[in-house]
Amino acid sequence: MSRPNDLSLNEAARQLATGALTSEALTAACLERIGAREAEVGAWTYIDSELALEQARQRDREPRRGPLHGVPVAVKDVLDTHDMPTLWGDAKTYADRRPQRDAPIVRALRDAGAVILGKTEVSRFGFWWPARTRNPLALDRTPGSSSSGSAAAVADHHCPLAVGTQTGGSIIRPAAFCGLAGIKPTHDWIAWRNARDFAPSFDVAGWLARDIADLQLAFHGVTGRAAYAPDAPPPPTTVVGLQRTADWSAAPQYVRDNFERTAHRLCDGGVIVREVVLPAEYDALSDAQHLIVQYETARLFDWELREARGQLDNGVRELVEGGLAVSQADYIAAQDLAIRLRARFDRDLDGVDLLMVPGSQGEPPPVSDCGSNIFIRAWMMLHVPDVSLPAGHGPDGLPLSVQLIGRHQQDAQLLAHARRLEAVLAG
Amino acid sequence: MSRPNDLSLNEAARQLATGALTSEALTAACLERIGAREAEVGAWTYIDSELALEQARQRDREPRRGPLHGVPVAVKDVLDTHDMPTLWGDAKTYADRRPQRDAPIVRALRDAGAVILGKTEVSRFGFWWPARTRNPLALDRTPGSSSSGSAAAVADHHCPLAVGTQTGGSIIRPAAFCGLAGIKPTHDWIAWRNARDFAPSFDVAGWLARDIADLQLAFHGVTGRAAYAPDAPPPPTTVVGLQRTADWSAAPQYVRDNFERTAHRLCDGGVIVREVVLPAEYDALSDAQHLIVQYETARLFDWELREARGQLDNGVRELVEGGLAVSQADYIAAQDLAIRLRARFDRDLDGVDLLMVPGSQGEPPPVSDCGSNIFIRAWMMLHVPDVSLPAGHGPDGLPLSVQLIGRHQQDAQLLAHARRLEAVLAG
Repeated sequence: MSRPNDLSLNEAARQLATGALTSEALTAACLERIGAREAEVGAWTYIDSELALEQARQRDREPRRGPLHGVPVAVKDVLDTHDMPTLWGDAKTYADRRPQRDAPIVRALRDAGAVILGKTEVSRFGFWWPARTRNPLALDRTPGSSSSGSAAAVADHHCPLAVGTQTGGSIIRPAAFCGLAGIKPTHDWIAWRNARDFAPSFDVAGWLARDIADLQLAFHGVTGRAAYAPDAPPPPTTVVGLQRTADWSAAPQYVRDNFERTAHRLCDGGVIVREVVLPAEYDALSDAQHLIVQYETARLFDWELREARGQLDNGVRELVEGGLAVSQADYIAAQDLAIRLRARFDRDLDGVDLLMVPGSQGEPPPVSDCGSNIFIRAWMMLHVPDVSLPAGHGPDGLPLSVQLIGRHQQDAQLLAHARRLEAVLAG
Repeated sequence: MSRPNDLSLNEAARQLATGALTSEALTAACLERIGAREAEVGAWTYIDSELALEQARQRDREPRRGPLHGVPVAVKDVLDTHDMPTLWGDAKTYADRRPQRDAPIVRALRDAGAVILGKTEVSRFGFWWPARTRNPLALDRTPGSSSSGSAAAVADHHCPLAVGTQTGGSIIRPAAFCGLAGIKPTHDWIAWRNARDFAPSFDVAGWLARDIADLQLAFHGVTGRAAYAPDAPPPPTTVVGLQRTADWSAAPQYVRDNFERTAHRLCDGGVIVREVVLPAEYDALSDAQHLIVQYETARLFDWELREARGQLDNGVRELVEGGLAVSQADYIAAQDLAIRLRARFDRDLDGVDLLMVPGSQGEPPPVSDCGSNIFIRAWMMLHVPDVSLPAGHGPDGLPLSVQLIGRHQQDAQLLAHARRLEAVLAG
């Protein structure tokens, strides 16, 4: 018999709605699982069991506020919580930081009746110094960064849903490495406030869960929008545009084979699949995204350089100095490229419902390596939704994935299509 | 002979560039003017003369960083400054608040070589409780809120340029009442961070100055973009679309007459002027904007309600409770209206370069009244740039204005057209 913490978000929500399960019992099961596994997985920066159970009991007493009522949710520790410490992935520099306010997504989850279970591990400053978290599917591998703890917690059944954030690839990459469904939503779908800024042009909060229907329910619960309801009717057809990207050759043969195999399986399952060739300008997006991140991130370290210089190691200092050396002209040119392509991406999709792109550069590397975001960061420039869908396995039996890129503000439609692709690949 | 603080931004910048004027002399002249006038005008929440002069002397010693090098700029006190207190318009609730970080626009001004002269008055919480500031053109009148101090400082020649912010009408309204040029730029043109949030869907920083060329120079100095350079060639023609808005009947006759007269003067000056009829859906924007502000603002008072309830007066508490009572369904419907019209506004402009709309509902009211934003807030929903241009006078000889509404991300083009209209109206 499966324990409550093994339930999918949709199944847990159903049982909470009927009264077959209480929030307290579900939260207790999650805490028990965490207690048994945390020493090995290292997903959490902060858990106060009593605070979590207190929220759960309160939810059990209250009228239900919606489908997420009573569900325990993990929150990446770059997002502020007024009742828990928030150390932004660096306990050394931000020791004992206790913010006054919730980040908007945290507030929205509370308003929707969710239980904020605790805060999850982040790679330091959201960069490529790995967090201590291990991949639950193979403990010697990375779960991917920087939403490392959020992904590991959901993959290891500590809870059914986690909030991640992405600037370059920090939701899509850990989703890929942990075999999860993840979404980097349309930029600014919910305000980015009371959070550690990495690059304001891109920073966005999103979801990690065990399947696409759970991502739908997360949005549905928080926004109230009917288009996200997991039982909304599916779109009549799905047309997928294959996009091998400028960096196709950077993928090992097994990733390319898996991508082609995935396309064939979709075809066989009745999905319409065709090539989309994007104009050459799109090839510059990935480097331009990296340049904008360097430029913006460096300028957010003013307080650290002034007041906490001693705590910054050489790596961070070099990174900041590198970013300060990027010229304003190059930064503006990169921003102008993004503005130009955002305005035309809808047309360039050429009638397909979504683009399908390789998800990761391969199976998760060892824990000392955060993994690459080479296939991910270009799409950040367009501010469009990006879904990570598990698809196939690599030579070591670990998960591979595809990215599904949708239209601006059409996250609900993208998820509805993704749900069909997920069903075909499962069949 | 005019004193340095009477110079326009462009003229001051020219003299600083040639060495005819030092930043120290200009800053000292500004401080002297403030000393003479502040008791009457009440524009400032914080000025440390020595800190301002120290920045100026530093600028005079440094290599020039760009056209704003050495220029003293006023900053609205809802934007954080790491070296000055930031009380967010409410010294009672936020007494002694000393932020760690600069808001991005403050950082960008410093990077461009500007002198941060001091912090300016704000109506309480950015709402309609007036600041103590008076309109320098008529001391018994309001300068308009909520960027009250920024507008009064520039209008009274305390400095040539000020940063304001707008959520509903807080730049355009004081610009109108003080006879200034002002711009509410494209949403998110610069990150909104380290600032008092009012409604994240709309909050944006912009500029107040004495003419359009000065607004161009402010952008040019901060972004480095050539399109904003005041000496860039003007567009070959300007086609203005007259838009009387759903609230036309709320304007007194003298405002309507002035609007028509302005249109005729533009026609006579060679500008092409025609009517634009927007679809009926646009009529709902103004109320929907207000609803979004209510909903979002209320949710930003969690800390205040929890920790500073005693300091909040009944008015604020009622406002917050009202916002918390707005339904999520109504909020989502309002957001969906904005998303829909943003996607089609460019087409609905029907080939004109900009829309012209009445700026204010009349001359500035008495100091006890912040004035109306009835003609302004609809345009906030579209995230497009909005320029306030002085145009004519009312029965008491005080300034009237028009708003010029441009295309998303085309702030530079809008200002170039605005400059032509300004020249025609001055002729």
